Amino acid sequence: MHSPAPVTTLGFDADDTLWHNESIFEEAHRRYCGLLSRWHDTETVERTLFATEMRNLELFGYGIKSHALSSIETAIAMTQGQISSEEIRAIVDLAKGMLAHPVELLEGAAEVVPALARRYRLVLLTKGDLRDQERKLRKSGLEPHFAQVEILSEKDTSIYQRVFARHGIAPEQFLMVGNSLKSDILPVLDLGGRAVYVPYRITWQAERAEPPKDPAQASRFFQIQSLRELPDLLARL
Amino acid sequence: MHSPAPVTTLGFDADDTLWHNESIFEEAHRRYCGLLSRWHDTETVERTLFATEMRNLELFGYGIKSHALSSIETAIAMTQGQISSEEIRAIVDLAKGMLAHPVELLEGAAEVVPALARRYRLVLLTKGDLRDQERKLRKSGLEPHFAQVEILSEKDTSIYQRVFARHGIAPEQFLMVGNSLKSDILPVLDLGGRAVYVPYRITWQAERAEPPKDPAQASRFFQIQSLRELPDLLARL
Repeated sequence: MHSPAPVTTLGFDADDTLWHNESIFEEAHRRYCGLLSRWHDTETVERTLFATEMRNLELFGYGIKSHALSSIETAIAMTQGQISSEEIRAIVDLAKGMLAHPVELLEGAAEVVPALARRYRLVLLTKGDLRDQERKLRKSGLEPHFAQVEILSEKDTSIYQRVFARHGIAPEQFLMVGNSLKSDILPVLDLGGRAVYVPYRITWQAERAEPPKDPAQASRFFQIQSLRELPDLLARL
Repeated sequence: MHSPAPVTTLGFDADDTLWHNESIFEEAHRRYCGLLSRWHDTETVERTLFATEMRNLELFGYGIKSHALSSIETAIAMTQGQISSEEIRAIVDLAKGMLAHPVELLEGAAEVVPALARRYRLVLLTKGDLRDQERKLRKSGLEPHFAQVEILSEKDTSIYQRVFARHGIAPEQFLMVGNSLKSDILPVLDLGGRAVYVPYRITWQAERAEPPKDPAQASRFFQIQSLRELPDLLARL
């Protein structure tokens, strides 16, 4: 039995791994449901909005602007056009507020990322809107610690493969840290890498997935409660 | 007197350099002005929309979704909220139509790009929406000819510098081809590279700039009418 290759490169997801994001969407959804509460209950609004977002995903992609356009489309459809243009203007303003929101780092990120950057090559792998992700990274103060930053339109096996090739990353020396089983964990395990799942308080419905079941993959899968546990976990590998 | 270094890497802009883009915006603007014609003339609508876009640029960035959100905001403001939600829905649909629009290559692109890819390293340098640019590149059929693709949130001197560093590009061996003096030509000349301006029929107001006046820069600046002239120009360098 041989010991596993040493980890040399750490991949980090950004939203809800390094800084809060779903909590900003949660607050915006609360206000959005408030706008539509004259017509529909929260559960119906959320279900309908999610269906619109999934229908528009291929065309719009991820991010706040896509979300805003789907929210406007849903609001018009759900009210049979009765929603006022002022209320639609309020949806645009909600999106602006989300884009301008301060970046709030998750517990431990401010200490753990710089400490790990001294021992590993750190790569940021995030999906979403180009300018919004760049802005959040800049505001986070963490940018100098990342050797590479990849803002991607999707995070699946073939995209990770392309990123590995581009940066000369050997999957068996790579470990990904993120809050999405679907986007951060399963594709990396598929490619032979290791992955640490750090669940966030809320998981967007589109990012939900089951943990790995295949024992070969499960042996490369780890779960922690907070980024603070990451250095110890890495030391034990 | 020494002869200039040989060009080894060609940078290409995408929208309105390789494929039509402003013509799609032009058609959407025509319909948008039609929607608002009960309230304002075309010139007033276009001036007001452009002002909104510039105000929102830092927050929204470039691309069709940003344009759509600014269009909605402008329409509500310009009609004092009198625009109907069906008309707003029509603006969302205009954006969807633009995103789903077929990619129509510019004259010469289909022949010139593959031919040049055999002799130079080609790099695509485009700004805009991540998913939209990726989709257009895929649809264009030109993707296999590019060694690197950079979708950027802005194209200014510091961003070109970063791209040069990332890909080990020496500015004096780099030549950029594009339709925007502001984004494709001037920053590259500033850094010591060469640049070929291929004007498109329409230039978005935010991309307008004066040609280089400094003689040292002007000697590295070229203008052609069509991509078809590019191979000959390169052969004469």
